[in-house]
Amino acid sequence: MTTWSILEFTGVIAFAVAGALTGIQKKLDIFGVLVLAMTTAVGGGILRDVIIGNTPPLTFRDPTFFMISAVTTIVVCFTYRWLEKYKNMIQIFDAIGLGAFTATSANLAIQHNLNTLFIVTTVAVITGIGGSIMRDVFVKEIPYVFRQEIYAITTIVGAICFYYSQFYLTGAAQLYLCFCITTVLRLCCIKYQWNFPVIGIPSKDQAAKE
Amino acid sequence: MTTWSILEFTGVIAFAVAGALTGIQKKLDIFGVLVLAMTTAVGGGILRDVIIGNTPPLTFRDPTFFMISAVTTIVVCFTYRWLEKYKNMIQIFDAIGLGAFTATSANLAIQHNLNTLFIVTTVAVITGIGGSIMRDVFVKEIPYVFRQEIYAITTIVGAICFYYSQFYLTGAAQLYLCFCITTVLRLCCIKYQWNFPVIGIPSKDQAAKE
Amino acid sequence: MTTWSILEFTGVIAFAVAGALTGIQKKLDIFGVLVLAMTTAVGGGILRDVIIGNTPPLTFRDPTFFMISAVTTIVVCFTYRWLEKYKNMIQIFDAIGLGAFTATSANLAIQHNLNTLFIVTTVAVITGIGGSIMRDVFVKEIPYVFRQEIYAITTIVGAICFYYSQFYLTGAAQLYLCFCITTVLRLCCIKYQWNFPVIGIPSKDQAAKE
Repeated sequence: MTTWSILEFTGVIAFAVAGALTGIQKKLDIFGVLVLAMTTAVGGGILRDVIIGNTPPLTFRDPTFFMISAVTTIVVCFTYRWLEKYKNMIQIFDAIGLGAFTATSANLAIQHNLNTLFIVTTVAVITGIGGSIMRDVFVKEIPYVFRQEIYAITTIVGAICFYYSQFYLTGAAQLYLCFCITTVLRLCCIKYQWNFPVIGIPSKDQAAKE
Repeated sequence: MTTWSILEFTGVIAFAVAGALTGIQKKLDIFGVLVLAMTTAVGGGILRDVIIGNTPPLTFRDPTFFMISAVTTIVVCFTYRWLEKYKNMIQIFDAIGLGAFTATSANLAIQHNLNTLFIVTTVAVITGIGGSIMRDVFVKEIPYVFRQEIYAITTIVGAICFYYSQFYLTGAAQLYLCFCITTVLRLCCIKYQWNFPVIGIPSKDQAAKE
Repeated sequence: MTTWSILEFTGVIAFAVAGALTGIQKKLDIFGVLVLAMTTAVGGGILRDVIIGNTPPLTFRDPTFFMISAVTTIVVCFTYRWLEKYKNMIQIFDAIGLGAFTATSANLAIQHNLNTLFIVTTVAVITGIGGSIMRDVFVKEIPYVFRQEIYAITTIVGAICFYYSQFYLTGAAQLYLCFCITTVLRLCCIKYQWNFPVIGIPSKDQAAKE
């Protein structure tokens, strides 16, 4: 097991935990909780593979990620009350996963001869946020990533760095550079609570002034 | 028309009826009711084909299933009040369809050289529940299969039997074995109202005790 | 830039405006508004390409449509209050786009050897309404095209004309015929407010009589 696998596994676990907790909160049955955890963990990667024509998806050919999600779900079912206290730690794991998935996906796009800045970035974003969008749609929520916190932008920045670094760096160094930039940026967003502005309907204060 | 086609057609009709009734209940217009019926009936199969790279999907190359769904929808539009009384019969048809689709899909996965227990099972589950998940998402419901009744598990059991039976049986026997196991198991779930437990927030009684 | 590109660009702009306005109304952040605009504008085409196996999708290989959607979104963010007054004009643009996309998609299906009336029509419908279905699902609405106004039918009529015209006309004439039929029919639907009937639950008046 390489260091890189460990980073990816960390991400799969964090994503599966987020999915399973959402399922429990929404009172799904055990099967629903399992599907939601798996969707969050591997949904983005499946979407990526289907869109770039890499079928059957990687996670179907090597079901390790599915297995990790399943085991994680079982553990979450027994520990979910206790997990609430470790939200910060889960967010850190999630940032690690986001970094690893961004680098892996950007790399996969280039390996499939989809080597333009735009595609590399889009493929990375779809992988990073696709799973959580599906999770939120399944439980009737407007996807979280569309509403709060800067999440996808960190993936975009990471993927852009990956794209340009290919002219200066080799394989592993490129992956780790992209991973570090994405993860550190995401952790900053969490720590300093950076949000995107919401456009539109003026707040009550503004409305009062007008 | 083979016996197998009849089983599949029964399933398509049952799925389309479920979709059309949902559409009517949610006050969609005729076009919406039609799309919902088709989505429920052939959506799972399309999802399966897109994921395993079998494009364009089978139902596009041979639109028989689409035609059956369309005709079913028209019939449902004229008879929906009367259909309410036959809910039990529709559930039996649905179980027949689930069994047939499970066997067909597991078989298709193996024909596409996706011959591992995990993939065969996942492909069967996606085909079995994919259509009804899409239906529920379209009408803003948390998918039924995540919340109530044991549904997908019968597909999983059927697909596992299909996978292992390939070492002992030939084509048709394998299909019918898988069909019988899935359908009978599903009928038992309906008859004895087997449900999965919902984890989590304790019920009021429990909360009172604590 | 050909006349045909101008028609398509008009459509992309109209679809992106509809998506961006929905996002602003639902109080998404800027990233959410951008994703919603892009989904509405290019989602249908991506869905089409994934289903017919034309991967990676055209819009990934030539990101012009994505760029147009992004620029449109930025413009909408600054002008959305003012745009409300031009709803009629946006509907006309939308009808132009629907016509252009229908013709392009029907043509693409035939180029991919999917030359049956059924597939050509289905592919055109998926392209025409796929993006707006995804938009509505993301913001927790039952898709608009399932509930009100005749929208998809105009695509169906256009695609059928495209299919039969291939026996009498050559490339460009075929495209423009299909475009004109779809767009004019859609404009009629808007002008005369043609709706599909909603089946089902009797209105209060009817219930009182019974």
